[in-house]
This record gives sequence, structure tokens and C-alpha cells, in this order.
Amino acid sequence: MRDFYPDDVRLQNWLFDTWRAVSRSFGFEEYEGPIFEFLDLYRLKSGDEIVNELFNFTDRGAREFAIRPEMTPSLARMVAARANALPRPIKWFSIPRMCRAEKPQRGRLREFFQWNLDVLGVEDPLADAEVISAAVAFFRACGLTSQDVMMRISHRGVASAALAKHGIPRELIPQAFAVIDKFDRLTPEAFTPMCAERLGADVSAEALRELVTTATMDDCLELATQDGPAGIVDATALRQLWGHLESMGVADVCTFDLRIVRGLAYYTGSVFEAHARQGGLRALCGGGRYDDLTGLLDGPRVPGVGFGMGDVPMIECLKQLGKLPDPGDSIDVFVIDTDASLLPQMLEIVADLRSAGLRADFSYKRTGVGKQFKQAGGRGARYALIVGDELAERGEVTIKDLRTGQQQTVAAAELRQRPVEWLGGV
Amino acid sequence: MRDFYPDDVRLQNWLFDTWRAVSRSFGFEEYEGPIFEFLDLYRLKSGDEIVNELFNFTDRGAREFAIRPEMTPSLARMVAARANALPRPIKWFSIPRMCRAEKPQRGRLREFFQWNLDVLGVEDPLADAEVISAAVAFFRACGLTSQDVMMRISHRGVASAALAKHGIPRELIPQAFAVIDKFDRLTPEAFTPMCAERLGADVSAEALRELVTTATMDDCLELATQDGPAGIVDATALRQLWGHLESMGVADVCTFDLRIVRGLAYYTGSVFEAHARQGGLRALCGGGRYDDLTGLLDGPRVPGVGFGMGDVPMIECLKQLGKLPDPGDSIDVFVIDTDASLLPQMLEIVADLRSAGLRADFSYKRTGVGKQFKQAGGRGARYALIVGDELAERGEVTIKDLRTGQQQTVAAAELRQRPVEWLGGV
Repeated sequence: MRDFYPDDVRLQNWLFDTWRAVSRSFGFEEYEGPIFEFLDLYRLKSGDEIVNELFNFTDRGAREFAIRPEMTPSLARMVAARANALPRPIKWFSIPRMCRAEKPQRGRLREFFQWNLDVLGVEDPLADAEVISAAVAFFRACGLTSQDVMMRISHRGVASAALAKHGIPRELIPQAFAVIDKFDRLTPEAFTPMCAERLGADVSAEALRELVTTATMDDCLELATQDGPAGIVDATALRQLWGHLESMGVADVCTFDLRIVRGLAYYTGSVFEAHARQGGLRALCGGGRYDDLTGLLDGPRVPGVGFGMGDVPMIECLKQLGKLPDPGDSIDVFVIDTDASLLPQMLEIVADLRSAGLRADFSYKRTGVGKQFKQAGGRGARYALIVGDELAERGEVTIKDLRTGQQQTVAAAELRQRPVEWLGGV
Repeated sequence: MRDFYPDDVRLQNWLFDTWRAVSRSFGFEEYEGPIFEFLDLYRLKSGDEIVNELFNFTDRGAREFAIRPEMTPSLARMVAARANALPRPIKWFSIPRMCRAEKPQRGRLREFFQWNLDVLGVEDPLADAEVISAAVAFFRACGLTSQDVMMRISHRGVASAALAKHGIPRELIPQAFAVIDKFDRLTPEAFTPMCAERLGADVSAEALRELVTTATMDDCLELATQDGPAGIVDATALRQLWGHLESMGVADVCTFDLRIVRGLAYYTGSVFEAHARQGGLRALCGGGRYDDLTGLLDGPRVPGVGFGMGDVPMIECLKQLGKLPDPGDSIDVFVIDTDASLLPQMLEIVADLRSAGLRADFSYKRTGVGKQFKQAGGRGARYALIVGDELAERGEVTIKDLRTGQQQTVAAAELRQRPVEWLGGV
């Protein structure tokens, strides 16, 4: 679990603001759910073994709850509850806080946040292209290019056809996906026996390795097209998706990659993962198309496509690449009084500046002007505003630009009337 | 527990943004803690009875945790951990999500958010004045005036002196506070026997009622001043606080009120609660000064003052007063194509608009122009951008202002270069 001191919150707010800005520019709307759900909601989707990975508890009514480990079940529940009322397409995003009862390790903590972005109610590959483009738009907003990060994309249907055409029996294709999913993490020596164990002696590990590492998208589209009507539909969807990614200007960051499987999750069409080119294999985001999100809640069929991107691996990646921004904590103006007797007038001026939306602060201690200037510097103030004897004498105060050192006097009445023009625009 | 559909999130984001803007204008920095803490952290402050009000659970290491029911213990823990490193004053705010295992009722839900704002490390009444002013600044930002809401302020020390001078034995003053705390919720018939039970027959319920309802601040300051050195210190602090509230321009929303006690919490100086003038007695925010926040964690003594303001009663109050804003969901531009063959060019333009930060959307269906215009209206778009044959013919597209109905053509190259100038500023 993390504590977020002000420096940490500033960084997190920058991340969340950027996620929000990208989501909104793509026309997505934000939703949120409760921090815990009925435990059964997670059992329904993932079976009993999920319970060990959850923080679960029982309330006084003996009902079982769990802190959410992912957002998709809540999304499914919320969409199912209003399936008929929500206009299509449903373009939603969220930045949920979630917890998993697993051992903390690099890039994985027990508590984390995750950008979730989904298009529901649409089967058209345009929706797949939109969510992939949104993830890429976020990478670009962080200053990342195709030199830093790649979106690796596959398609479960096209991959199935390619595997079948390469001699994997259809009933073993889920097993083949499970093996391929581990490919990146296995040494060649470990891959061969796993193939034999899961896929039997008839399947050549060497041929499978060859296929997943060298097959181009065109190869796979060709194989899928030869694989009957379903293969043709899948090939067309993948071809369209790629065309849209090109039109949307993100194809340079995208690469077809048969090794992308996305575990044994409920994906049915496109699947994708973004990886940093350096610094380990951990995915920065992962997602894909699922045919029937709400079906697991006995709701009406709602197709969808979406992804999740965690705050922890993303921040770690930006740190490694030296792309972490420095969202400094500067205030607009620090107000200084030259004598304790001026405190009431000083407070009036501070109140006016704040009412105008300026970030204004002052010292709680009636100390010397030098100490107050030092405090102004410590707070990163752009301006110091000095309230001194000339306020009583001539109704004036002094503004000092702490970047340039330049000073000017201004009538206090004028300043209080138009504070942003004098002190805004940091 | 609440689901937040997009309409709900927009309202919540408006509330959080306003809390953040006010906090920042006052020079406060944001912090955050984990969603759950060790159960003992809450036992330490509130004793064993608190456990029944918590959602608590045990992890596989048999450690006891609880979802946070309030932020103050986390704040104390975080400040204690860096007590020597943090520069003073510590001006911090947070908008934590928290849970209480209580029966949901009007204004109280099992899951809620709460604006917490505290100044730590400062004993000067300037800090008390700042936090009260920040709460009032938020009310004003919502359009509330002294006609709508009042900040009722008392001071535990001054109140103790006033009670003592009115014949309440000093050892019974905590009991007297407990009785006064219930005053607003009790009928006169119930108040008298409760006084007798808690304070004994020697204390006149009538005199106590008279004191707490009619005593002015000046009366109480006078009584405190007569009550020895401690009373003089407390009277001076309250008098200074009031002077600062006047200088800060918020005194019109503030009223001295001996009935404000803030339960049996750890407050030691000023105590305050904001109440709406209409619509029930539920406090909109409450807080005060506590002498020793981190002492309960065996940390060094850190004095502080702060308050909490819940999202649920605040939204309910604004709704009742008709002051709830309508943060609409409008996009900047909806892009329309007049023929399916123009989709690639249309997607290129959409991508450019989004890269420039504009909220741009389009139809996933290649339907007629009329249907696309209808969709643009449904999304609250300010502009429609029509991509038609004139793009190929003359390199032009058409912008339609959906508010005025006016249309103009523009070179696509010019639009893609400066999209915000053509379509921004909604």
C-alpha cells in the first residue's frame, strides 16, 4: 500500500488528468463504481480460485464482499442494469482504485489505479481502432514514440485459423494459446517440453516457434482466408482494423504479433498489449474485443472492446525513459507585510486574490521581511506582494516579480479589482 | 453503495474540482493514503467499539485491516512518519473515498467521499481562520450566501470557562458538553431529564438552556477572562480568530454558538460546524482545533486545525437550494462524412482534431447525413464538420455552427493546421 505525499499526488494528478484529457478528446464519458462488490460477481466470471487473490470480507448481514480487483465485472453489472436505456455506442472510461491480495513486486502493488476505456454495443473494427488509438494518443501525450513503446496486436480468430492451418488440432487451440502466452517468458529449453506436454508429440515445438515469431500479418490473413467463412470474417475485421489504424495515424506504433494472446481471458477478437521497448517485458496496457460482456450476468448480449492501463507500470516506464514530468508546486503570489500592524489589511488583500482564483499564501508568523521573502521562495511563488507603510500613505502596494527581480508599485484598489491581470498567468 | 453513471461522475468531478480549486487558491497541497489501514490504527484513536462501524478483514498473514472510515488517523500516521522532514506549516488537503458499515440513511451512505483540509504545526488562530475561510470560500463558489448557510463557531476552552462560571462543576464539564451536543436534536421535555441524569440535581437545566441559547460571544469572552490565565489565553485566541475572520471577509457567514461541541472528539480549541439554514440539522462540514494529532501514535506533538466535508450532504443541500450546477456533456465537434468512401480521410481529420485537444467524435455507422446530424445533436456537439466531395474536388470541408446554424467552408489543410482556432472555445 502506498502513501501519497504531496509530490506523489501531483504526479498522480498529472497522470489522471492526462488519461482524462485523452479519453474526453476521443468522446468518452467517465463512470465509476463502488470500491467493493458482492464476492459472487468475481466468482461468476473467474471461478472460485479468484477468491485467494481478493481482499474479501463479510458484513454483519453475513454477506460476502470483495474489494474490486478489476473494473470489468462492475462495468458489466452497470451496463446490464441499464442495457436498454443507454444509447449506443457506449463509450466509457474510468480510473478506478483497486486491490489485489498478491505479493507486491516490481510494477505490481496490492493497491493500484487503472485507466479503463471501453466501447460497448459496437462490433465494427472502428471501435477496436478507437481504443487502440486512445492508448497511443496517451503515449504520445507523454512524449513517447515508436522508439519507446510498441502496441503489439493480434486477433484470436485469425490466430486460431493460422494455428489450425499449421496442423494444430482445433480442440487443442486453447492449449496452444496458453503455451504461446508463456512464450515471451520461457527459454527455448523450457518451451519445447511445455509444447509436448500441452499439445502432444504430434505438434512440433519448432514449427510453432517459427510460426509465432516470423508469421507476418499478410501470412496470417492469407491462412485465415483459406480457413472458411469464419476465417474470412476474422481476416476482414483485422484488415479493416489495420486500415483504420493507418488512417488514424497510429500504425507506426503498432505491430502485428501472433505471440499476443492475453492469457485465458474472455477475449474473442482483437487482442493487444503495449510494451516498452526497454526495461523488461511487463505490459503497459492490455485489452481486446470480448463478444459478450454482460452475458456472464445473464444480461442481454453486449459486444465490446477495451483495455486497462495500470498507474504503477506506466509511472515506472516513464521514470526509466526519463519522461516523467515535474508537475511543480508553485503558487502565484506570496503576500508579505512589513509590520505586524498591517496584518488585517494584508488578510483582506489575500482574501481578494484567492476569491479571484489566484493561489495566494502568506506567513503565519509576523517575522522580518527577509524571512518572508525566503518563505515566498520556498513556496515557489511567482510574485511577492509587499504590503507596507505606503498602503496607508498613498494607498499603494509593491509587486516584485521573483523571476526577474523587477518591482513596481500599484494602487491597492486597482490590484484588488483586477488581480489576475497583475498577478495571474504564472 | 453507489454506481456513478456518466451524469453522476460529471457532477462529482465538478464538486471535486471546486474543492481542489479552493484548496489550491488557499495554498494547500493534496495528499492521499491507502484505502485500508491496520485495524489497530482506528482502535488506537477510538477504542474497540469503533470496530462495529468498520468494514474489516484479515489477510492471509492473519493481519487485521479495515477500510478507512475517516482520514484523520491516516493523516496522523503520515505526518508522524515524516514529522521532522516536513516544512511548517503543513497545509494539506485530501478528497478520500471512505466506508462506514452503518445503515444507509438520508445524507449518510456506506461509501462516501469527504473533503479534508488541515493546517498542522501551527497554534496561531490564523490557521483556524484559514480553514474556516476555505470552507466559506467553497460555499460562495457554489453560489451560497449567509442566507443559505451559516458557520457556527465555538471554542472548547471559552465554553468550559463559561460553563464553570455558570456553576457547572469542572469535573462535569465533559458531561455537560455531551448534553449540549445533543441539544439541537432534543425536545425541551427530553433535555431536562437528560441534564438531571448526566449533571445531577444541582445543575439547572433551565439555566443551561438559557446560557447556550442566549450567551453572546462577548458574554463568554468576559466570563473566560474572569476564569484565570487559561481562560485569558482562550479568550484571546477566540477574539483573534474573529478578527481574522472579519479581515478575511467571511464574518457575515459566521456566528458564535455555544451549542457547537463536535461530539466527544479530540478537539481542544475552536470547534465549528456549517449548517444549511433550511432542510434539517445535518452538518455540512465540521471541524476544529486539536492539540496533539500525532500524539496518539506516539509521535512528536503536532498541533493542528481542520475540517471534513462530505459529498453526500453537500450535494443534497445544493439540490434542495436549487444550486446544483448542470455540468453538461458537450463535445466540440462531430465529424460527418457524406459517403462511406470518405471514411479514411474523415478519420485522419478526426485524429488531428483530437491531437489538438478538441473533443471530437463521429458515427461508427456509415449512415445518411441526416442521421449523423441527429447523432451530433444527441452528443451536444457545438460544431458539425462535414467531409464531402468538395474535399477531393477543392480540398475543402464545411463547418456548421450547430447553435446558430451558420455554415462556412474552409480549406482542410488550414483546418488541420489550426483546429482550435476554427472549432475551439466552446
